[in-house]
Amino acid sequence: SRDLCIDQAVVFIEDAMQYRSISHRMDAGSMRLYRCYYSNACQRILNFTIFCILALAFIETPCSLTKTADVRYRSLHWEPPCGLTEGVEGLCLLVFMADVSVKGFLVGRAQFQRNVWLLAYIVVLAVSLVDWTVSLCLLCQERLRIRRLLRPFFLLQNSSMMKKTLKCIRWSLPEMASVGLLLVVHLCLFTIFGTLLFTVGEEDEHEKKERLTYFQNLLDAFTSLLVLLTTANNPDVMIPVYSENRAYAIFFIVFTLIGSLFLMNLLTAIIYNQFRGYLMKSLQTSLFRRRLGTRAAYEVLWLPRAVLTGGFPSHRVGVMPQDFLQVLEKAQLSSSQKQAIMEKVRSLDGVLLSADEFQKIFSEVDRGVVREHPPRPCYQSPLLQSAQFLFGHHYFDYLGNCITLANLVSICVFLVLDEDVAPSDRDNFVLGVLNCVFIMYYLLELLLKAFALGPWGYLSYPENLFDGLVTLALLVLEILTLAVYGFPYRGWYPEMRGLLSLWDMMRLVNILIVFRFLRIIPNMKLMAVVARTILGLVQNLRAFGGILVVVYYVFAILGINLFQGVIVAPGNDSLAHDNGSAPCGSFEQLEYWANNFDDFAVSPVDVAPVPHRWSLVYFVLWWLVSSVIWVNLFLALLLENFLYRWDPRSHERHLSGMQLTAELIFRDILEEPKEEELMHRLRNHPHVRLCR
Amino acid sequence: SRDLCIDQAVVFIEDAMQYRSISHRMDAGSMRLYRCYYSNACQRILNFTIFCILALAFIETPCSLTKTADVRYRSLHWEPPCGLTEGVEGLCLLVFMADVSVKGFLVGRAQFQRNVWLLAYIVVLAVSLVDWTVSLCLLCQERLRIRRLLRPFFLLQNSSMMKKTLKCIRWSLPEMASVGLLLVVHLCLFTIFGTLLFTVGEEDEHEKKERLTYFQNLLDAFTSLLVLLTTANNPDVMIPVYSENRAYAIFFIVFTLIGSLFLMNLLTAIIYNQFRGYLMKSLQTSLFRRRLGTRAAYEVLWLPRAVLTGGFPSHRVGVMPQDFLQVLEKAQLSSSQKQAIMEKVRSLDGVLLSADEFQKIFSEVDRGVVREHPPRPCYQSPLLQSAQFLFGHHYFDYLGNCITLANLVSICVFLVLDEDVAPSDRDNFVLGVLNCVFIMYYLLELLLKAFALGPWGYLSYPENLFDGLVTLALLVLEILTLAVYGFPYRGWYPEMRGLLSLWDMMRLVNILIVFRFLRIIPNMKLMAVVARTILGLVQNLRAFGGILVVVYYVFAILGINLFQGVIVAPGNDSLAHDNGSAPCGSFEQLEYWANNFDDFAVSPVDVAPVPHRWSLVYFVLWWLVSSVIWVNLFLALLLENFLYRWDPRSHERHLSGMQLTAELIFRDILEEPKEEELMHRLRNHPHVRLCR
Repeated sequence: SRDLCIDQAVVFIEDAMQYRSISHRMDAGSMRLYRCYYSNACQRILNFTIFCILALAFIETPCSLTKTADVRYRSLHWEPPCGLTEGVEGLCLLVFMADVSVKGFLVGRAQFQRNVWLLAYIVVLAVSLVDWTVSLCLLCQERLRIRRLLRPFFLLQNSSMMKKTLKCIRWSLPEMASVGLLLVVHLCLFTIFGTLLFTVGEEDEHEKKERLTYFQNLLDAFTSLLVLLTTANNPDVMIPVYSENRAYAIFFIVFTLIGSLFLMNLLTAIIYNQFRGYLMKSLQTSLFRRRLGTRAAYEVLWLPRAVLTGGFPSHRVGVMPQDFLQVLEKAQLSSSQKQAIMEKVRSLDGVLLSADEFQKIFSEVDRGVVREHPPRPCYQSPLLQSAQFLFGHHYFDYLGNCITLANLVSICVFLVLDEDVAPSDRDNFVLGVLNCVFIMYYLLELLLKAFALGPWGYLSYPENLFDGLVTLALLVLEILTLAVYGFPYRGWYPEMRGLLSLWDMMRLVNILIVFRFLRIIPNMKLMAVVARTILGLVQNLRAFGGILVVVYYVFAILGINLFQGVIVAPGNDSLAHDNGSAPCGSFEQLEYWANNFDDFAVSPVDVAPVPHRWSLVYFVLWWLVSSVIWVNLFLALLLENFLYRWDPRSHERHLSGMQLTAELIFRDILEEPKEEELMHRLRNHPHVRLCR
Repeated sequence: SRDLCIDQAVVFIEDAMQYRSISHRMDAGSMRLYRCYYSNACQRILNFTIFCILALAFIETPCSLTKTADVRYRSLHWEPPCGLTEGVEGLCLLVFMADVSVKGFLVGRAQFQRNVWLLAYIVVLAVSLVDWTVSLCLLCQERLRIRRLLRPFFLLQNSSMMKKTLKCIRWSLPEMASVGLLLVVHLCLFTIFGTLLFTVGEEDEHEKKERLTYFQNLLDAFTSLLVLLTTANNPDVMIPVYSENRAYAIFFIVFTLIGSLFLMNLLTAIIYNQFRGYLMKSLQTSLFRRRLGTRAAYEVLWLPRAVLTGGFPSHRVGVMPQDFLQVLEKAQLSSSQKQAIMEKVRSLDGVLLSADEFQKIFSEVDRGVVREHPPRPCYQSPLLQSAQFLFGHHYFDYLGNCITLANLVSICVFLVLDEDVAPSDRDNFVLGVLNCVFIMYYLLELLLKAFALGPWGYLSYPENLFDGLVTLALLVLEILTLAVYGFPYRGWYPEMRGLLSLWDMMRLVNILIVFRFLRIIPNMKLMAVVARTILGLVQNLRAFGGILVVVYYVFAILGINLFQGVIVAPGNDSLAHDNGSAPCGSFEQLEYWANNFDDFAVSPVDVAPVPHRWSLVYFVLWWLVSSVIWVNLFLALLLENFLYRWDPRSHERHLSGMQLTAELIFRDILEEPKEEELMHRLRNHPHVRLCR
């Protein structure tokens, strides 16, 4: 019983630190399963499986592993033998079945039946399995694979952030639908207006008729205006009627003002309004989960002590520090957190911990660890000391930035000078020598800084890490170049030896030098703020990226099913565009051959001119989902974060130079959960009876 | 002295009701001038003068009064005789001189020297006058007219809302400049990357070279990426390199993610952040001005009473109601406000008013007047009464809406049926009869409603007013049609008689019927909310529209000066595009002939293909100012308004159905100015000594 309590406390504390729910089975066997399930290895296997099943789309027929997507130049698709991808998929599905069984067992039957996501998980798995079996029975000759459309679900159900974001989108759906209705009414009215206004009167000539092609009938007019709303065909729609009479411009101005400016921004306002509280609410939930977990750990630790020390007339009740230490020893926390907490506990000298003190120890962890750099090495010689001062000073960084800038300018100068010379005739002598010199300097800078700060001190700055890695890559490239092509000499023309030509080597070096220029980011104040905000948003951005992946996945699979093979490479008879006979703006003239749907890695960027009747609907849907909803969600996330960052109240912390994650930023305004709430939830725990 | 005080109180109360500053001269002569200056007539003259001087640009050389702007079809510009527009302009400048003198005199010398807008006004006037004189001396042959660029200033300086919005933009300029710097760095780095990545290697053929045209040299690459940021050439830039190797898409995806998604939205966040407090602050200032004005009126009314009733041992001090009534009598307020206040004062029975009571009476006015409809007429006969119930019921409105919808559908059906028939061969018999019947019903509906609600009751609903006017216009059109073309018969083909052909008459009728369909707006909940919000924003929207006019004006004048005559109509030798020899995407192929800068009513929509080296810079600047800054400002205004409207706290008032203006919405959260603040400002009034 004593060991069970310790184990329960360990699980509770791990739950608290990972912001997990504590409503799962708590007997010894289940806990072992639980800890195993949430161990790094298991979670990595699960994530890798999800990655695998999603990545399968690149390899499956139609396979995406060709260099170009252009139907004119593309080699034949490689066809994976039947059973290869299906085999991998079968393994993945097995893992998912294990996953759902474990999850279902751990939460218990009652909770399972109430959990919509888990139920949907089972349904999706069942459908996938049936579809998979059908696939195998038909020897992979089936036309439609439903399970490909269902795959993104596995990604969705595994991320609580993505589930929350989806919930937020679902809440705003009714209002978005209203605005959508407004947009449709707006479009319909303007379509009728447009068709009535821009029809050809009886006395008009043939020429004019051609120019009013965008408004010839209701369907054409609707299409034109719908695309105008996405601004993709602006100003092409307007020009023909505008050149007829300039007053007609008013029609398009009013349409754009109401549609793009007012209704679209209304959509932004709706999404932002729903999203405003969302981040805060999510952080509040996380805080509640942490407090609940620690409180639960306190309760299970407290109870047996009361029994064991029952005979003592102790005037304080609480948790024995040695129990706590034992729990911490067993719990899987990050080493820095563990050390910080253990030091705190040891400093208490064996006094019993009350619930408040217990919570406070964990609050310390949230404060954010201010990262300390290792001390600089101490040199004896005064010469070395002054050298250390010199090269450890931040003016030395500025000098390095200036040199990098000079290198960048030199590359640009040669790009401009040689722009008219064919690459094979370019004399790379001067640029080669310059790059050599600059790379030597970068190496010297690296060594001097490492000398001044000590090797570990040097590596403790992320910008130095970046700098050093790029410099090393540059050095390796330069040595390879010199080894293969010898030292630069006048007339060092590009030629081909070994894997890469001198020309490619030089380009790679130049690209790396430009890339190395990014080390200036921390030196520019605003850039640093922006970069730090992005880093602080990483957790949220992952959810957003995941949703984009899901949307893209579904649209790409739909695109393959709808439009595969629609775009046929021009044969010899249709090399028409060379003669200029393909009408301007058509698919052939624009040479959108690469923009097809023949494999998964498609680009649903602008399929409007694709010669298929459903392409426009597909295009507008993709625009609505990816551009309107997703971009607005992202804007809402940015607004929420930056507005708080710029709030004068948060300014003091901002200046203190601490690394602010989203949690820390909002910590001041989060509400601490109340004691009664916590105890109420603990008393209603479905699997453990915690009573005092 | 007694009369002077009454007059001063009148002016103060007028200032308070119009939210004007009270820091102006207060002697009897100045006050007469002041009231005259702010009288409706004078203000209308001033506004008309501003409109005139701005509208001059349409008439001046190059004159915009042609039907089409297309250089191929345009008739010769009409040249106004020298001295005509200059004469009108001279008159306008005279009015402005009078305006600035009066304003300067009224605020007094000390204030005048501190007022940047007034000083700038004088400078602009002086420059305009000099330029005008030069113009006359050179007999209108001068090339450059600086004064045309300065004209929007007259619009700016006359609107306090626009000045405030400008101030808000000025505050966010430093942060916008930082983001602009980030954008430039982003663009430059990606330009170098792109040029290095997408150059043609030694072994590439001629064909490939042509396809990499967007990244041939640094300047081309920079231009391509800059336009890509505005998304105007998406996906054309990407396709050539994407069809080379699909991995190159990553370059464009990263560029768009950082540039369009992150940095552009950062700009939105910055502008919204500055704007958030702006609306509130501006309303707070208005409230302060109102309270200050009424308090000043109280102070001047209070003082002489204390002197006159000095002998009385009165235990209350304050303002005599009869003085107050006298002031109200003289003040120019809206009649409903005046009546409401006077009734309040009369109900006080001659008791002296304290400062608080005095303020409270005016607060009543702010509450917003709930508009009452006149009572329905009472009919004696039970038949008439039940008819009144029937036609006054809102189901009758719904029936009307359904009939309108049916009419709309019938028009659409005929548009679809006749889409392949030339207009001169269309038989308008059925549609003509249907429209006749529908218009008869509309007339009947109008009469029945007027009967049920009474004529004034009918007109008191704005939707009925709209409905009635459109119905009358329809009736007139229909009668004219019938009079000219007779009753519809089989084979009622369009023919030309009188001013408009039957075809045009029918189109006009149809357009009016579609327009009449807008009466459904108040019946759709969301539409009504949106429409009401727009109406509530009118004050702010005027300022925003004004700023857009200013920006457009400056850009149009700049465009004329830079690009006038650059686009030359194609001669007979260059009817090239008919043969398809004009390259696709060029100005000639796109037939952007109407999109030129030969007169003021130009459209700086998409001048990228204009064959002039500065056109791209101009296009990007116009995009930045009009699309990025202005649209973001507008978005901020919308967000600010809708977010408060959707706030649950404001929900109760929302439901009460009152017409909520921006002031009323925010009234609850505005702070009442403090007594000491008001008295401090009054004591420091530059022209009146108010002492107690």
